[in-house]
Amino acid sequence: MPQDLRSLDAFTDTQRLIVVAAHPDDLETMCGGTIYQLAQRGVEIFSVNCTLGDIGAQDASLNRPTLAAGRLQETDNAAQRLGIRQTFNLGRPDGELLPDLALRAEIARLYRLTQADTLFTFDPFWTGQIHPDHRAAGQAALDAYMPSKMPLYQPAQLNEQGAGLGCLERVFVFSTDRDPNVVVDVTAVYPKKIAATIAHKTQFPEGEANLDWLKEIDHRIGERIGVTYAEQFRQIDVW
Amino acid sequence: MPQDLRSLDAFTDTQRLIVVAAHPDDLETMCGGTIYQLAQRGVEIFSVNCTLGDIGAQDASLNRPTLAAGRLQETDNAAQRLGIRQTFNLGRPDGELLPDLALRAEIARLYRLTQADTLFTFDPFWTGQIHPDHRAAGQAALDAYMPSKMPLYQPAQLNEQGAGLGCLERVFVFSTDRDPNVVVDVTAVYPKKIAATIAHKTQFPEGEANLDWLKEIDHRIGERIGVTYAEQFRQIDVW
Amino acid sequence: MPQDLRSLDAFTDTQRLIVVAAHPDDLETMCGGTIYQLAQRGVEIFSVNCTLGDIGAQDASLNRPTLAAGRLQETDNAAQRLGIRQTFNLGRPDGELLPDLALRAEIARLYRLTQADTLFTFDPFWTGQIHPDHRAAGQAALDAYMPSKMPLYQPAQLNEQGAGLGCLERVFVFSTDRDPNVVVDVTAVYPKKIAATIAHKTQFPEGEANLDWLKEIDHRIGERIGVTYAEQFRQIDVW
Amino acid sequence: MPQDLRSLDAFTDTQRLIVVAAHPDDLETMCGGTIYQLAQRGVEIFSVNCTLGDIGAQDASLNRPTLAAGRLQETDNAAQRLGIRQTFNLGRPDGELLPDLALRAEIARLYRLTQADTLFTFDPFWTGQIHPDHRAAGQAALDAYMPSKMPLYQPAQLNEQGAGLGCLERVFVFSTDRDPNVVVDVTAVYPKKIAATIAHKTQFPEGEANLDWLKEIDHRIGERIGVTYAEQFRQIDVW
Amino acid sequence: MPQDLRSLDAFTDTQRLIVVAAHPDDLETMCGGTIYQLAQRGVEIFSVNCTLGDIGAQDASLNRPTLAAGRLQETDNAAQRLGIRQTFNLGRPDGELLPDLALRAEIARLYRLTQADTLFTFDPFWTGQIHPDHRAAGQAALDAYMPSKMPLYQPAQLNEQGAGLGCLERVFVFSTDRDPNVVVDVTAVYPKKIAATIAHKTQFPEGEANLDWLKEIDHRIGERIGVTYAEQFRQIDVW
Amino acid sequence: MPQDLRSLDAFTDTQRLIVVAAHPDDLETMCGGTIYQLAQRGVEIFSVNCTLGDIGAQDASLNRPTLAAGRLQETDNAAQRLGIRQTFNLGRPDGELLPDLALRAEIARLYRLTQADTLFTFDPFWTGQIHPDHRAAGQAALDAYMPSKMPLYQPAQLNEQGAGLGCLERVFVFSTDRDPNVVVDVTAVYPKKIAATIAHKTQFPEGEANLDWLKEIDHRIGERIGVTYAEQFRQIDVW
Repeated sequence: MPQDLRSLDAFTDTQRLIVVAAHPDDLETMCGGTIYQLAQRGVEIFSVNCTLGDIGAQDASLNRPTLAAGRLQETDNAAQRLGIRQTFNLGRPDGELLPDLALRAEIARLYRLTQADTLFTFDPFWTGQIHPDHRAAGQAALDAYMPSKMPLYQPAQLNEQGAGLGCLERVFVFSTDRDPNVVVDVTAVYPKKIAATIAHKTQFPEGEANLDWLKEIDHRIGERIGVTYAEQFRQIDVW
Repeated sequence: MPQDLRSLDAFTDTQRLIVVAAHPDDLETMCGGTIYQLAQRGVEIFSVNCTLGDIGAQDASLNRPTLAAGRLQETDNAAQRLGIRQTFNLGRPDGELLPDLALRAEIARLYRLTQADTLFTFDPFWTGQIHPDHRAAGQAALDAYMPSKMPLYQPAQLNEQGAGLGCLERVFVFSTDRDPNVVVDVTAVYPKKIAATIAHKTQFPEGEANLDWLKEIDHRIGERIGVTYAEQFRQIDVW
Repeated sequence: MPQDLRSLDAFTDTQRLIVVAAHPDDLETMCGGTIYQLAQRGVEIFSVNCTLGDIGAQDASLNRPTLAAGRLQETDNAAQRLGIRQTFNLGRPDGELLPDLALRAEIARLYRLTQADTLFTFDPFWTGQIHPDHRAAGQAALDAYMPSKMPLYQPAQLNEQGAGLGCLERVFVFSTDRDPNVVVDVTAVYPKKIAATIAHKTQFPEGEANLDWLKEIDHRIGERIGVTYAEQFRQIDVW
Repeated sequence: MPQDLRSLDAFTDTQRLIVVAAHPDDLETMCGGTIYQLAQRGVEIFSVNCTLGDIGAQDASLNRPTLAAGRLQETDNAAQRLGIRQTFNLGRPDGELLPDLALRAEIARLYRLTQADTLFTFDPFWTGQIHPDHRAAGQAALDAYMPSKMPLYQPAQLNEQGAGLGCLERVFVFSTDRDPNVVVDVTAVYPKKIAATIAHKTQFPEGEANLDWLKEIDHRIGERIGVTYAEQFRQIDVW
Repeated sequence: MPQDLRSLDAFTDTQRLIVVAAHPDDLETMCGGTIYQLAQRGVEIFSVNCTLGDIGAQDASLNRPTLAAGRLQETDNAAQRLGIRQTFNLGRPDGELLPDLALRAEIARLYRLTQADTLFTFDPFWTGQIHPDHRAAGQAALDAYMPSKMPLYQPAQLNEQGAGLGCLERVFVFSTDRDPNVVVDVTAVYPKKIAATIAHKTQFPEGEANLDWLKEIDHRIGERIGVTYAEQFRQIDVW
Repeated sequence: MPQDLRSLDAFTDTQRLIVVAAHPDDLETMCGGTIYQLAQRGVEIFSVNCTLGDIGAQDASLNRPTLAAGRLQETDNAAQRLGIRQTFNLGRPDGELLPDLALRAEIARLYRLTQADTLFTFDPFWTGQIHPDHRAAGQAALDAYMPSKMPLYQPAQLNEQGAGLGCLERVFVFSTDRDPNVVVDVTAVYPKKIAATIAHKTQFPEGEANLDWLKEIDHRIGERIGVTYAEQFRQIDVW
């Protein structure tokens, strides 16, 4: 393994981890294997999807609320397989996510409510990111980091039961072209990742047969550290 | 009957009627009896609900897309009972409808697509209207009237199959404190109105037993013209 | 007193009253005498100002935050004189208040948090209202009424300590051209109204000497019921 | 003439008059005869059109900037015929005017720059107003009244050469269902009104032959005061 | 020629090409030589300018609609010289382009309507891009890529005659600091590029004499592949 | 000193310098030493803070206008210590700065009013920038560059006394990961930088004792050119 690459030990101090993604199934495909292992170690995992994923179908005769309702159920099924403690969906329309102040505030609220110490999200600065929702989710997640720690920002959020000032200490981005500095071997738990991913039946109606592309990506990452499958992250400096 | 009040004959020239409402069940309660009779006479009826009605529940454990999906189905069930030709739902979130330019354009599109000659909608100027969605739906419906007739407004809409310039000639508002000038006897078809209304099971889980308030309103209107049940409208001048 | 006019007895069932105004000093001038009497009777009064009142000066060399800070202090001074339990300021810039969804949500939050049963606000439909902030405050206050009662609207608000579903039962508007149906004799407590009003020193630097216009208005209302000073309201139907 | 109706004498103190309309040709049709007479008396007239009028054509093959450019020229031609000192066009797209804060600020700027003491505009509260642009122009014009007088509102505007605090003292609305309290006999100057109106050639390509509707309206108003043609206004109270 | 650089052969499979730019003359200066050659080979070219270019003048006495109308005409003149099949202008104001959802939708509509397989646009991620409109046009063009392929996104667009799901397969950006991977020799057609560029007379009133800067840029690119003039692109990965 | 690094001589031609930052104290910490030296040389310095810095406190009991008022005063105190000629605060709420068109216009106005030839601002493209306000301030500052030079953009701004077309010639960004090409030795004036920074008492209540982090950063930069303390910039190409 290259010298400065870390593995799961990058998360040694993590007790509560929040993942901010755009669509149901983003978490599973991007970092499902890492999440499963962290949950097994006792980390509390919170999953946030900003959109309902409600244009995620090639069948034009579907109506969007029905698709959304199905995907919320799939999200919970997948979460159960990975050991995720709680899922949140912010209800934004798919394909039209914007990193606006309202989204920032809703994400900051979840930082405060979950008291997460670690964040996973999309790298909003990846110049190869062709999906605007991915960029928007990552941007809003980073933008919420700083204000969530300040008591005069959206103070009503602090009145909710269990809420406190934001206390994120570590931020990791995925879907990035920055050099990854964390690569996690997910070979042993790969069946778990697959199982969670195919819980999204509307997206992968033929199950594992729909996931060759994912295996190929994860395999290519694995080669970096000499294993079959891996997931990678870039930890960024925050202050 | 007071001298200048008209009845169903106010709609003698109506061939295609569009109703712009805010929530599933607005059309049924406001003018279901009139709609049924017009449909029976061969008028083509188009129903537009601007919102999904997705906060329309007292059960906080429901998720909104699931409620929305159910209400879309209920809308179609009710439409079938009334003989409505086609229903549209503009997908806005319930309780937060705004009469913005996007909504105006979507409604104008439907005026152009349906080639409706007559509009029913909420009176946005009723000072007693406490539901902001009702006001917003009515305002957007009136605001779309004029631009829909102008070819340089949203010209791409005119490329859709069957679309033409807006051709509304008659506008009637309900939920108004302006003096009504049309009152329609709906006594004979009242069971149809009730049946369509209770098709909205999420709203009226106990069926007709939930509708005493509606009967009282319709009865009070009926008294104006000496019948058991009636619905009332104000036709407004347009140019 | 004209037959159908009510006086303070209109508020017999009121236990918690919320006043939604636009600027510091609106409450005091519009209904300070009524508020004082209700507070004396044990009604809990909550005061909401939507804007900071931070253009409320003729001295162009002032900076707006300094003016705002002063007016917050004046608001509290006035509230103390009237027996108001709690004041809220929503921090919007003066002269630019809009009845947008964010304002609606913040007001709905306060309905839920205070559990007010009665609302006082500006009539947004008064065609003579030349101050846009007054119209906006009243509109947002009315628009928040309905959603505040629905659990799926802004559900996070319901997690705050002490919050519950909105439970407003009575709505009274002031600054209206609708026929008033409540006129309250404030003669006996007029010195209290004056004292609270002149607590806004930035607005009335010469104290009572600046209030001839107010006395004239209140006197004209008083004449309706044969007293020296009165304040008037229109209770509107809500459902 | 009914007792409390005033005529041109309502404008005795007017020295600088600003008219805020929505489209080129609104001023001419609504009050061209009054404007001409006031200009003749030495009143400085400023004309503001909020939109470019750039959907004002039935020919779908036109492009909007070309139509707009033509209408700007027509506006100036008409202004010359009426003796208007200066015309402003705020460049908003036709059919989509909103009374937003930016429009309010631009209108306030013109109140400050022209130092107008009198305003003419559409009544935004007319419940029969079917054109949304008319309502928006009137609303923004009224909303700008109060802030324009306050030095901390948009203070940079006060740095422009010749600008001062807003000093409107009189506000008159047209296109209203409030009882008119000013009716101006325009019979003697009607040819001037017609000439100014048909300067808008894109709108009235056949000249006076296109204006039977206007003559009918103005004649109906004239009958109120026993003349052939008149224009009417409602002066509203401002403070 | 450096080994991995491709030339016109990068576009071998291109049949319908859409160029999304910000202002009239962007296409011509950025890639006019390449466009001309592709048109000659039978590729159907569609040109989209997001803004009217209506602040593109140093003469403050011009009015914007007149400038815009002129530039639309210049766009068509230039298009004719290059063999472009159709031009679209989205009518946004120059200097204020934002990559908002409305712009995204309008661009997606054109992907669907033209059935383009290849996209040229500005690189929105170039950190040296000082013109905000260029960044906005490129961002909106990339953001529209993904949704245009999904049937539940803006489904009304699919009803227009000739429209189908977006089918872009190749995306090339210009104005970029990413390593170019396509450099096209435009020496032989350079007079065509110059002729098309100077069709924008408002921008280059002295014709070719105004284009030394352009020749210098194109010459510097040419040096990379040992020719007099060239244009360069970065093909980015899409999925 | 590395060969292509420039020092204060990078600003030889600078006569009027404008710094666009997000919060009071950004200027002082980012480039206070450089600013002081330039002011000493006779450069006119203009400081722009986009936000009020009004969430900049850990004490939840503070109200925001009071904090803002204090920070405006601190800004002026610090400016006096550095020899800054004029400070501007754009009044935006802290933690919620957006690079919208209104902000762009306000900054362009200041470019025109100050006739600055040189700009300092945050690099909006730094992928490590975790504070959204910093990114927004830098983005708006760069976005305003081009339009400020064009007479048809916001032409009313040009009417203000002393205003002219924007004439920025040089742009330097700080807080960047682009290779710095200007590093300024601030060792000799470091006490001035410290004094200006601790003028922000609300932020650094213990004075210099709160600034170890700043010294460390400046020292690390200093090491690049072999001095104790330095500040660094990246000049970017503009056209």
